Amino acid sequence: MTHPKTGKALGEFGRIDRYFKPLASGFPGARGLADDAAVFGVPPDRELVVTTDAMVAGVHFFPDDSPGDIAAKLLRTNLSDLAAMGAAPYAYTLVTALPKSVGEDWLAGFAAGLGEDQARFGIALAGGDSVSTAGPITLSVTAFGLVPKGGAVPRWGGRPGDRVFVTGTVGDAALGLQIAFGKLEVADDSARAALLRRLRRPDPRTTLGPRLVGLATACLDVSDGLIADLGHLCEESGCAAAVESGRVPLSCAARAVIGTDPARFALALTGGDDYELLFTAPEDAAPALAGLSAETGVPVTAIGRLVDGPAGNVTATDPQGRALDLPTRGWDHF
Amino acid sequence: MTHPKTGKALGEFGRIDRYFKPLASGFPGARGLADDAAVFGVPPDRELVVTTDAMVAGVHFFPDDSPGDIAAKLLRTNLSDLAAMGAAPYAYTLVTALPKSVGEDWLAGFAAGLGEDQARFGIALAGGDSVSTAGPITLSVTAFGLVPKGGAVPRWGGRPGDRVFVTGTVGDAALGLQIAFGKLEVADDSARAALLRRLRRPDPRTTLGPRLVGLATACLDVSDGLIADLGHLCEESGCAAAVESGRVPLSCAARAVIGTDPARFALALTGGDDYELLFTAPEDAAPALAGLSAETGVPVTAIGRLVDGPAGNVTATDPQGRALDLPTRGWDHF
Repeated sequence: MTHPKTGKALGEFGRIDRYFKPLASGFPGARGLADDAAVFGVPPDRELVVTTDAMVAGVHFFPDDSPGDIAAKLLRTNLSDLAAMGAAPYAYTLVTALPKSVGEDWLAGFAAGLGEDQARFGIALAGGDSVSTAGPITLSVTAFGLVPKGGAVPRWGGRPGDRVFVTGTVGDAALGLQIAFGKLEVADDSARAALLRRLRRPDPRTTLGPRLVGLATACLDVSDGLIADLGHLCEESGCAAAVESGRVPLSCAARAVIGTDPARFALALTGGDDYELLFTAPEDAAPALAGLSAETGVPVTAIGRLVDGPAGNVTATDPQGRALDLPTRGWDHF
Repeated sequence: MTHPKTGKALGEFGRIDRYFKPLASGFPGARGLADDAAVFGVPPDRELVVTTDAMVAGVHFFPDDSPGDIAAKLLRTNLSDLAAMGAAPYAYTLVTALPKSVGEDWLAGFAAGLGEDQARFGIALAGGDSVSTAGPITLSVTAFGLVPKGGAVPRWGGRPGDRVFVTGTVGDAALGLQIAFGKLEVADDSARAALLRRLRRPDPRTTLGPRLVGLATACLDVSDGLIADLGHLCEESGCAAAVESGRVPLSCAARAVIGTDPARFALALTGGDDYELLFTAPEDAAPALAGLSAETGVPVTAIGRLVDGPAGNVTATDPQGRALDLPTRGWDHF
């Protein structure tokens, strides 16, 4: 029983009033979600950064994940893309395509999750569309950020000799996904919870990202996996990279689960969904980066170098300097 | 066989290269779809207008509609929202969630349809996301337009005494939908084709819309139906409206099909999917509007007035001045 143009279920206008209008109240450009579109300006010394990420139940998240977790992941993966460009969060639009089976409880939890993250990351809802679907829950966010004019950090600015840095720790989400699949048993409850939390609630580096403008030569966020994404950065930059795998930062939980298992270590390097920033900077940027890391509380670790070589080629060595044989992509099939 | 984060089918990167990168080549801010996000500025004397519309197969279009028609409708419904704000088209982002059954032919037709409309309306692809789904084809566009600072035409600026205007003709798409459903037989091939074309390829008023800045007091595009959308405008403007139904512009095809059938006439007034601009302006704007209409080639017809009364209340009279009893919404269920 839907509207042929809008696909809105009966009562959809009521749902928008109840759950989404409050999320837009902090952003005048949203015009109270009462107009045909949002309207906002961009300061003359800034550019707008625009990114879009979509998620489908059964592909990007488990249908029975909590709606608050789903909301957080949806928003945070987009914020991570903004951070990777050096942009500060500004606003976002939301598209929901929901099956009829989705009830008020789910929607209330989803909106609450968005609201919490809006406050956390200083961003507001600017507009969107709500439609119905006979298929799985399908969500997308288009996020807007602001960056100094000409300052957006590209993927393609890396140069041989630059050092390669990564924020936080990698591998947690990939190990968490194995736990969620039931393929990995972790006896330690707190390690198990920590890895699952990284899978469900990535921590976009929105404070550090904008500080990389003028400092990093190239940047992206790790979604496909550390090695694959470094390959993307290298491909766009026209060079190769050498990673010292012993320097790759791992969380205590990941360390405990990996132990001395080389397959698990390889998964951490290639598994994806980390949403950490992977960036390159000249040697002499290291002290400034150390200062930034201390100031923002975001760990920054040097893990290798860009080198001359075939564009996109990434080699990794173990602590003894021996070549590691890694799969290009570490991902599993949902 | 998809990537757990991106949900991309194997070969999805190849599909993006092949079908979507060419659509982004006209817009430097798209960064060749090779970065994490698009980056563009907004001139200091302009504001950005942002709108999002989603479409789901089986809800907003027939699964076997041609991919070119689907592309056109997706883009045009968004452009119509921009026009309703007085904004000129600038760029758009695209999210596609496609089932595995969608092959290269469909994608090629879809991209060709987007390309044709990009050229027609002067807009380019700025970015997007492509994911896979186990459900129906799900598409959304976020469209960006530019409007003079402070000039966006709201829904809520109408005042009692303003005249109500509509562009083009209304009712064609609603009649076309009945034909598509097999509920309406139209013997005349050219009338039949004309009505179906209006359903599948709405004609967003992108040239007239931006000219309404400073002239119209309120504006929206007719998607829910002329009467319902006038109700929305009135509700936001805090007044009522009186429509002289005999003045509502109908196409020759619609006129022929409606004949003297009051139910069909009611459908034309309430059926929706017209994507014409419905706006209000003071009495003394009529000559300027006539000039604009002549200049742009877009018919503009006065169909009634805003009046004092309960907010959102719309009454319609027949040519003899008798009250017409219309359903609030004329839509049928897909």
